Amino acid sequence: MVSKNQIKLIKSLSQKKFRNKHGLFVVEGLKGIREFLNSDFELVSLFTTGSAFEVSEELLNLVDEKELKKISFLKTPQQALAVFRIPEFREIQLSGLILVLDGVRDPGNLGTMIRLCDWFGIEQIICSEDTVDCYNPKVVQASMGSLTRVKVFYTNVAGIISENKEIPVYGAMLEGENIYKSELPGSAFIVMGNEANGVSEEVESLLTHRINIPQIGNSQDTESLNVATATAIILSEFRRGSSTGR
Amino acid sequence: MVSKNQIKLIKSLSQKKFRNKHGLFVVEGLKGIREFLNSDFELVSLFTTGSAFEVSEELLNLVDEKELKKISFLKTPQQALAVFRIPEFREIQLSGLILVLDGVRDPGNLGTMIRLCDWFGIEQIICSEDTVDCYNPKVVQASMGSLTRVKVFYTNVAGIISENKEIPVYGAMLEGENIYKSELPGSAFIVMGNEANGVSEEVESLLTHRINIPQIGNSQDTESLNVATATAIILSEFRRGSSTGR
Repeated sequence: MVSKNQIKLIKSLSQKKFRNKHGLFVVEGLKGIREFLNSDFELVSLFTTGSAFEVSEELLNLVDEKELKKISFLKTPQQALAVFRIPEFREIQLSGLILVLDGVRDPGNLGTMIRLCDWFGIEQIICSEDTVDCYNPKVVQASMGSLTRVKVFYTNVAGIISENKEIPVYGAMLEGENIYKSELPGSAFIVMGNEANGVSEEVESLLTHRINIPQIGNSQDTESLNVATATAIILSEFRRGSSTGR
Repeated sequence: MVSKNQIKLIKSLSQKKFRNKHGLFVVEGLKGIREFLNSDFELVSLFTTGSAFEVSEELLNLVDEKELKKISFLKTPQQALAVFRIPEFREIQLSGLILVLDGVRDPGNLGTMIRLCDWFGIEQIICSEDTVDCYNPKVVQASMGSLTRVKVFYTNVAGIISENKEIPVYGAMLEGENIYKSELPGSAFIVMGNEANGVSEEVESLLTHRINIPQIGNSQDTESLNVATATAIILSEFRRGSSTGR
């Protein structure tokens, strides 16, 4: 059963202002929900058409597909929907590689970047306040459970960078140094900017190293790489020296 | 003016069978259309709300925004829509790096991969017949004009690979060799597979080199990288030695 109030509450969680007001966000799909259940995130309520979850009875709501459709944000609901509590702000650990996002707006891009951080063992992302919210349902969906392993902070990124002058600050810039020829450290801020406008002037002025992924093709018309694609290549370059596989 | 027949024809071009029947596809947006006009592609008709294009008068149709909306595949039409002829199949040049796609289904992924090839100077993509059509409007949109510089072929990929035994065949596999420690040649087939199922058995049996992007993060739950993201990293690795920037 889903009550009208529950439908109204859950639907409201598509909007950041209501997520923040209630301190709640939505996860859909069996695999994603299982990963959040196995993490430190606190379950508030679970709606399922019958899949087995080991959660306390008062949090469990059996629903039919019609009811699930009423609360789901997906075109094709995925058997279960869970509401979790947004965790309190935890302290940033200023060591290792930290991805810094300055105005990334596209939920799919943020989701992809969270997955990339998970893959490359980067445990923290610091976002400017105007970066898309990581509890946006589309981000949660695109990040495929990686949000349980990568901590995402929202704060004044220029402030954090300024207060930690000992940490080098890398940013991807058209006129930067060839990343393939750069020595890349194991601890750094790696800054990626807005899809259309790049890194803000304030943050750009704080960069200590400008890097560039050189274009090999020679057309002037070629669009610069998408921010998520560029992040994939940059994180791979930062990590390639530390991989210990065969 | 747009006639009813024109609306019907253009709308039908969202489907592969009608694109193939008519030999036509659609490009939207000023920048994209300009790039196609400056390429070898043949313009068949252009619909614009007034933007200046230098095309012969009989191909030009001035329309208002309402009419443009009727023919556009976009939620927000971009001032102009053009119909181009699908080029005849040209011969594959068997040299340099060639990306081989075996069952890629997502238009956004194919569009991203075409852009990546353009960036990294890879001029040819060979696709299996079950790979999404590169003239799909979503692929054209996502590839941002790169389709004018990267040739995309549809054929029996296993056949092409089998007939060219002298060309090494690289494929991304979970149990492959660490790509960061592999010697990567300047001429090769680079095979990427379907989003859910990877490379088909037939094509997998033809791989001469299995490579792997090692996971640095240590969670078992981490999803493997998305195929477009993995392609970004793999193409970057193949090309990093040949970049001549600063």
